[in-house]
Amino acid sequence: MTTGTPAPFTAADYKARMDRAAQSAADAGLAGVLVAPGPDLVWLTGYHVTAETERLTLLVLSAGQEPTLVVPTLEAPDAARSAGAAAMTLRDWTDGKDPYEVTAPLLDGAGRFGVSDNAWAMHLLGLQKTLPDSSYVSLTEALPMLRAVKDAAELERLAAAGAAADATYEEIKKVAFAGRKENDIARELSDLLKRFGHSQVDFTVVGSGPNGANPHHEAGERVIERGDMVVLDFGGLKHGYGSDTSRTVHVGEPTAEEREVHDIVRAAQSAACEAVRPGIACQDVDRVARKVITDAGYGEYFIHRTGHGIGVTTHEPPYMIEGEEQELVPGMCFSVEPGIYLPGRFGVRIEDIVTVTPDGGRRLNATARDMAIVD
Amino acid sequence: MTTGTPAPFTAADYKARMDRAAQSAADAGLAGVLVAPGPDLVWLTGYHVTAETERLTLLVLSAGQEPTLVVPTLEAPDAARSAGAAAMTLRDWTDGKDPYEVTAPLLDGAGRFGVSDNAWAMHLLGLQKTLPDSSYVSLTEALPMLRAVKDAAELERLAAAGAAADATYEEIKKVAFAGRKENDIARELSDLLKRFGHSQVDFTVVGSGPNGANPHHEAGERVIERGDMVVLDFGGLKHGYGSDTSRTVHVGEPTAEEREVHDIVRAAQSAACEAVRPGIACQDVDRVARKVITDAGYGEYFIHRTGHGIGVTTHEPPYMIEGEEQELVPGMCFSVEPGIYLPGRFGVRIEDIVTVTPDGGRRLNATARDMAIVD
Repeated sequence: MTTGTPAPFTAADYKARMDRAAQSAADAGLAGVLVAPGPDLVWLTGYHVTAETERLTLLVLSAGQEPTLVVPTLEAPDAARSAGAAAMTLRDWTDGKDPYEVTAPLLDGAGRFGVSDNAWAMHLLGLQKTLPDSSYVSLTEALPMLRAVKDAAELERLAAAGAAADATYEEIKKVAFAGRKENDIARELSDLLKRFGHSQVDFTVVGSGPNGANPHHEAGERVIERGDMVVLDFGGLKHGYGSDTSRTVHVGEPTAEEREVHDIVRAAQSAACEAVRPGIACQDVDRVARKVITDAGYGEYFIHRTGHGIGVTTHEPPYMIEGEEQELVPGMCFSVEPGIYLPGRFGVRIEDIVTVTPDGGRRLNATARDMAIVD
Repeated sequence: MTTGTPAPFTAADYKARMDRAAQSAADAGLAGVLVAPGPDLVWLTGYHVTAETERLTLLVLSAGQEPTLVVPTLEAPDAARSAGAAAMTLRDWTDGKDPYEVTAPLLDGAGRFGVSDNAWAMHLLGLQKTLPDSSYVSLTEALPMLRAVKDAAELERLAAAGAAADATYEEIKKVAFAGRKENDIARELSDLLKRFGHSQVDFTVVGSGPNGANPHHEAGERVIERGDMVVLDFGGLKHGYGSDTSRTVHVGEPTAEEREVHDIVRAAQSAACEAVRPGIACQDVDRVARKVITDAGYGEYFIHRTGHGIGVTTHEPPYMIEGEEQELVPGMCFSVEPGIYLPGRFGVRIEDIVTVTPDGGRRLNATARDMAIVD
């Protein structure tokens, strides 16, 4: 596992990202990009707000214009300390002022802007009211691939996060499952992720027996029994980049049916990973996995998309889903995680993060994909 | 300190809140209220989403119409287990479907809707596109006082959270400050809040010496020295309701100037708390505090509003700020937290949560407000 701390991103790195975003917006016919606190802002500027509040913080990017961060006066000192601060101008506003009036002069009043998906509706409404001739589109719709292609420094971080998740899986296989609550195992997963360098744990799914058949079950008070299948799906952020891996283990010896279902998911996951290469569409990754499961007679039990992108968040574009025609490009990173969910009985999911290389794909998770037998 | 667990809110409680919201919207000339995951949804339905994602979850409330929660199919089982589930209909949608098309039939296509402040811009844009004749206003603008008046069960929780924050302050006064980092004290504050029943810690400000002069400083690596003023401001959620209190302590003996500044803030905070009663405007609370500080010659160093509401979040309407003409109503709960910030030197802030009673105000924090001397 990579244990060193990667060199921090510099103001020049952030300037390059901001320039790329402004240029991409111009190429897409937009007047600019408006970025609220959240992953887009972190990626573009390195600025993590202390808390998302009702006070407007908004980065304005427009080709040929200095990047400008509108920020509450109280938070300006924090913004000024962010790694990207040297690459942008701060324009602060004080409680009692109208922040949309402060922002308006930075915008083409008749322009169309990409706005970060998770910007608060109240802020969008404030801009729409102040600039009634402006129009807006979500960044995911306008520039879905803005953060999707990772550079070498980002891939280094994603690989380190994946290695930490793998180390977590190797350790969790050694603990006792039978007779303990899902929540106990979840807590151990969280502790392990942190021990292996995660600063943030986003999810620790422990879906035992019938709970494994609900793909969004997290973990609960159910006591794990001998004979249970247990879906483990965990991840978070290390050095600011995400991990996300799933393995399905069995407490004691599995039945023939359990083995069969696990084998089908494993074959589907393997086929989809092997299909990854530049130029194929995202939906093709989904189709490859789905075909294996459908051909085996379990199509109706694979009730979610095959994967999602990962970067400064653990869920982002590109999505491996029917209808997504975006072609894969080297540097993209996403999960491949087919599953079968038999309601009231058990579920199986296997998941790796895969990055697109010039001639194929490379998995960032490397633990064994066979069904581990745990105690 | 209250240590018992309060009786959980029932589906009937949530139904009453949803009915009140729909009726308030109708009274305000709105076709309804649209509520995304976040504090409004928790307050209205008891539903805590596992994670806020790009998948649309939206509660639709409209007078004379069954409350309906649009929810991703994967998350429907979680929603169905929420305490308010029995009081609403779930309408789920599956990956690949357009969630705005699923939502549209629930809405008056030419209506004006209040939308929760923190709904994602991408979802608002999706609704605006699908229903081009609809219009929207943020809930804080349309119905700012929707959650502001707390009932007895909510006040019980807020008082319990306040008592836990007070217990935390009593304990932190006993620890060593000199020679330790702000972050160490912050960690102890967090541990204490949890020990006294908080499920979530929102902030643990430790602003020592010059850091205390930045009211949004959290805590850092600065080593606290003898002679430092230290602003402590901490809070979070206990039983789902907020705490938020500030006291300013001194490491060793203060100077005459430090005493004077502290006395002024204390007098301002006391005067503002005593001014609280039904019928006065929020801005009057701010004015009372500000007048004391201005008259003492420090007006320019009181650089934020006097307070904010508290409930299922630690920052919400009503705001005690110049320009806010909303009258106080019994059951409202908010902070009263004036401060003086001398750049590069030190800051002082004193804060209590106050609730409006039929004939005045009642503080939910009861620790001594004189300047504690710590080691």
